[in-house]
Amino acid sequence: MPNYITIDEFKKGEITIGEIKSAEMIEGSDKLLKLSVDLGEERPRTVVSGIRKYFEDPSALVGVKCAFATNLEPRPLMGIPSEAMILAVSNDETFSLLRVSDATTPGMRVK
Amino acid sequence: MPNYITIDEFKKGEITIGEIKSAEMIEGSDKLLKLSVDLGEERPRTVVSGIRKYFEDPSALVGVKCAFATNLEPRPLMGIPSEAMILAVSNDETFSLLRVSDATTPGMRVK
Repeated sequence: MPNYITIDEFKKGEITIGEIKSAEMIEGSDKLLKLSVDLGEERPRTVVSGIRKYFEDPSALVGVKCAFATNLEPRPLMGIPSEAMILAVSNDETFSLLRVSDATTPGMRVK
Repeated sequence: MPNYITIDEFKKGEITIGEIKSAEMIEGSDKLLKLSVDLGEERPRTVVSGIRKYFEDPSALVGVKCAFATNLEPRPLMGIPSEAMILAVSNDETFSLLRVSDATTPGMRVK
């Protein structure tokens, strides 16, 4: 039996397009990256994510437009408040972000 | 004030990678397309979506791997039960699906 939810419940989760402006390693962590993400707001948000192992060179993430969960309460990771969650799929063999066309604008909301 | 939700609430919405196997117009509708989508299950699901206007040639969708909401109760559109919702962003200027790498496998769950 699937755990059905209503469309209104689904839409309580805000999914927003962001453009990654910078991506850097965090001293003392071999798992986390610290991203600065333009989500179409006044200032970019800081996003701390456990995607270090998928990006030998974090600068490959700069300019990428992809989907973020944007209404989770900020939580600190390695002492850095993470203000959104990057959405991804992964298994032992592969990893992928949820990417959108370059023609999209940061702040666009998934519907 | 943002409408914060918990990570558990967010994860109630199942987001799954699907591969579009076929895409066809629906007689009598200039808005809808009928998709057959491999979501890593025994049989593909039928997805009816109002994305007709973005795809002059629906066959451009065949082979595309992208994100679907997969635990909404099926609902009929033009008499056809739609068994998932394709996720997308759009405004007056642009439209985009949430695409993933070709190396991903249908059925992978977004986390």
